Amino acid sequence: MPVLWQQLYASRAEGMRASDIREILKVTAQPEVISLAGGLPAPELFPIDEYRRAFEWVLEADGASALQYGPSEGYRPLREFLAQRLSGFGMRCTADDVLITNGSQQALDLMGKLFLDPGDQIVVERPTYLGALQAFNQYQPRYAVVGMDDDGMCVDDLEHTLTREDRIKFIYAIPTFQNPTGRSMSLQRRRRLVELASKYGVPIVEDDPYGELRYEGEHLPTLKALDTTGCVIYLGTFSKILAPGLRLGWIVAAPEALEAFLHGKQPTDLHTGMAQQMATYEVCKNGFVDGQVERIKAFYKERRDVMLRALEEHFPSDAHFTRPAGGLFVWAELPRTVDTRALLIDAVRDKVAFVPGQGFHPDNTGTNTMRLNFSNVPPDQLREGVRRLGHAIQRRLDTASESRVGI
Amino acid sequence: MPVLWQQLYASRAEGMRASDIREILKVTAQPEVISLAGGLPAPELFPIDEYRRAFEWVLEADGASALQYGPSEGYRPLREFLAQRLSGFGMRCTADDVLITNGSQQALDLMGKLFLDPGDQIVVERPTYLGALQAFNQYQPRYAVVGMDDDGMCVDDLEHTLTREDRIKFIYAIPTFQNPTGRSMSLQRRRRLVELASKYGVPIVEDDPYGELRYEGEHLPTLKALDTTGCVIYLGTFSKILAPGLRLGWIVAAPEALEAFLHGKQPTDLHTGMAQQMATYEVCKNGFVDGQVERIKAFYKERRDVMLRALEEHFPSDAHFTRPAGGLFVWAELPRTVDTRALLIDAVRDKVAFVPGQGFHPDNTGTNTMRLNFSNVPPDQLREGVRRLGHAIQRRLDTASESRVGI
Repeated sequence: MPVLWQQLYASRAEGMRASDIREILKVTAQPEVISLAGGLPAPELFPIDEYRRAFEWVLEADGASALQYGPSEGYRPLREFLAQRLSGFGMRCTADDVLITNGSQQALDLMGKLFLDPGDQIVVERPTYLGALQAFNQYQPRYAVVGMDDDGMCVDDLEHTLTREDRIKFIYAIPTFQNPTGRSMSLQRRRRLVELASKYGVPIVEDDPYGELRYEGEHLPTLKALDTTGCVIYLGTFSKILAPGLRLGWIVAAPEALEAFLHGKQPTDLHTGMAQQMATYEVCKNGFVDGQVERIKAFYKERRDVMLRALEEHFPSDAHFTRPAGGLFVWAELPRTVDTRALLIDAVRDKVAFVPGQGFHPDNTGTNTMRLNFSNVPPDQLREGVRRLGHAIQRRLDTASESRVGI
Repeated sequence: MPVLWQQLYASRAEGMRASDIREILKVTAQPEVISLAGGLPAPELFPIDEYRRAFEWVLEADGASALQYGPSEGYRPLREFLAQRLSGFGMRCTADDVLITNGSQQALDLMGKLFLDPGDQIVVERPTYLGALQAFNQYQPRYAVVGMDDDGMCVDDLEHTLTREDRIKFIYAIPTFQNPTGRSMSLQRRRRLVELASKYGVPIVEDDPYGELRYEGEHLPTLKALDTTGCVIYLGTFSKILAPGLRLGWIVAAPEALEAFLHGKQPTDLHTGMAQQMATYEVCKNGFVDGQVERIKAFYKERRDVMLRALEEHFPSDAHFTRPAGGLFVWAELPRTVDTRALLIDAVRDKVAFVPGQGFHPDNTGTNTMRLNFSNVPPDQLREGVRRLGHAIQRRLDTASESRVGI
């Protein structure tokens, strides 16, 4: 008899269907489409020469180590570099506190793997990062949703959630330049969030891929920097400050938790590749990252400004959008009559793409919301893309008001 | 209150404890120990210059793609190369049938993730690869164990297992130069295994990291090459034919299953790193691998021969050991009185290491067995390592017979 694949899959396979992100990456591959969809960094800024020299050096100097199996914890000099750099941002740690992962996506998967039995709960912001929901969904959790405003997660509602809900395993938060909204949590709320987590003994998973990319305003401490009890698990990545294509991220956590993540990573892939870790260490070791971050910030700030001006010009006046002080994304809320999934079909016909916001809502709300990326689109295309999108929205609104008149 | 980590972990965390493999990798790092323990390829053979030139070329020619996010399926030219090469070995497939993974360890993890609910069963050979058991254990399966002899899995016992046992999700087999035993399944049994899998609609996961490393005898077709119904999921890796340090493997499977693996991989790490895939394609594309495999075979054959001669000389006459026609490992069975976990403590004191065999037995038998690696040890050290081990065994046997006399 033939293999009846569907009947063999584990129940978790339900949560592992085709992904919006992946479908989007396909649309963005068509060169004629102006894509405000992906979350891709601008390749113009990639340190290509630095990586070329770094790989050359690594293979010249210690090719055998670069091509051999390595430790599951990661390449020690890279862990040391990260510990030193993070300590400089107020997150005091040593190399022993750092685990290297295949991008922070693997770290998200490890959070699910380690903490979640089916039916366990995660506290998440609404909206929150789609890729995190996809990682967690593999482990069949429930979500305890906490709303956001312009100061980030409404932490005042959190204590109610922590006391009322059962089986909460961790709080997942992106406090700085959040994906998808671009919002940042205020300092007061950060303090309160860490305080509540410590009070109730609930870990916080702080996802911080964009924290260094601030275009204005004052640096805010990470949750990890405010953490005095070890309750914060900090996730970082090289994807937005160097390049995503090598898949390198890291976890900083209390020793007991880090050891458990290590035991979760090891059967998954033994370890993260050595050559890419060693080359990245070579790129980083002499202070290159700081200058690189400055170049990225100047470059993306211009694009953010262009996008915000274009939104003011072309979006209807009753649309709301965020004005992020950093990161890669602007978040827009359209009038309630506009379903952004339907709008996307119009938009792609007009050769512009974005991400409908519903997928970022674990409770399937947000049908009138959308995420717009500005990091990977040149200014003139940003203007043109937003213009096309504004027209598509206006057509939807006109149709909606006509059908109301018709009734 | 402090975070009580242990109380937050999912029930699967029980199956994710400290690993023998990882502890072994630590012992092997001490230069004064002769390690017959790991499964590491010989670094003398790594194509370091080829990789140096390949990374240079890739970053020169298309650095932006090498450092950007890429498709979850893998780098298409590498998938095309693999499809062509595997087709040459009788496994007819196209690039669309190939999914790139972070080593075949990630493929093993994906098998567990996709197929296993707690309590589901996997048919495995006894003994079988420790790293596979560790990957599967994360998903809390039961094991239906089938014995082996010098012709590999005792396939005659398999039909009984397939009809008697419930909830069998797949058969895991390493038919060629098995880890840990070095044994290969006979052609007749291969045919019978694929036949039974097709008859009962049970997938076979064929793990084939060593298949190309044959030192004598005739090439045998893989299970995948004998598969006419699409029931075989084939796992391959570059770890043993080029180098393990970049973490690159692949899955070939029926389209429906491959799509499910893709949806399992994507939330885990988005995709495998681009630079390492592109560089590996550059190393491979002009026929380099075939010559490289010939070099590896000549090199490892000598080491295998040295180890077998040393075993004949230094091991007690009532110890049995396999004479593998390929791969990296010899498997030894000692007299029943010798517990190889206890022996390892003596051995490390004598500066020689091996892997006790019990961990390869899902039913915790095999206390008198051991795995010996010959690929990563120069001939004179192989001789000396086996000599030391033989002495340690003899001391154990002498003690055992003395205590019997004492009684």
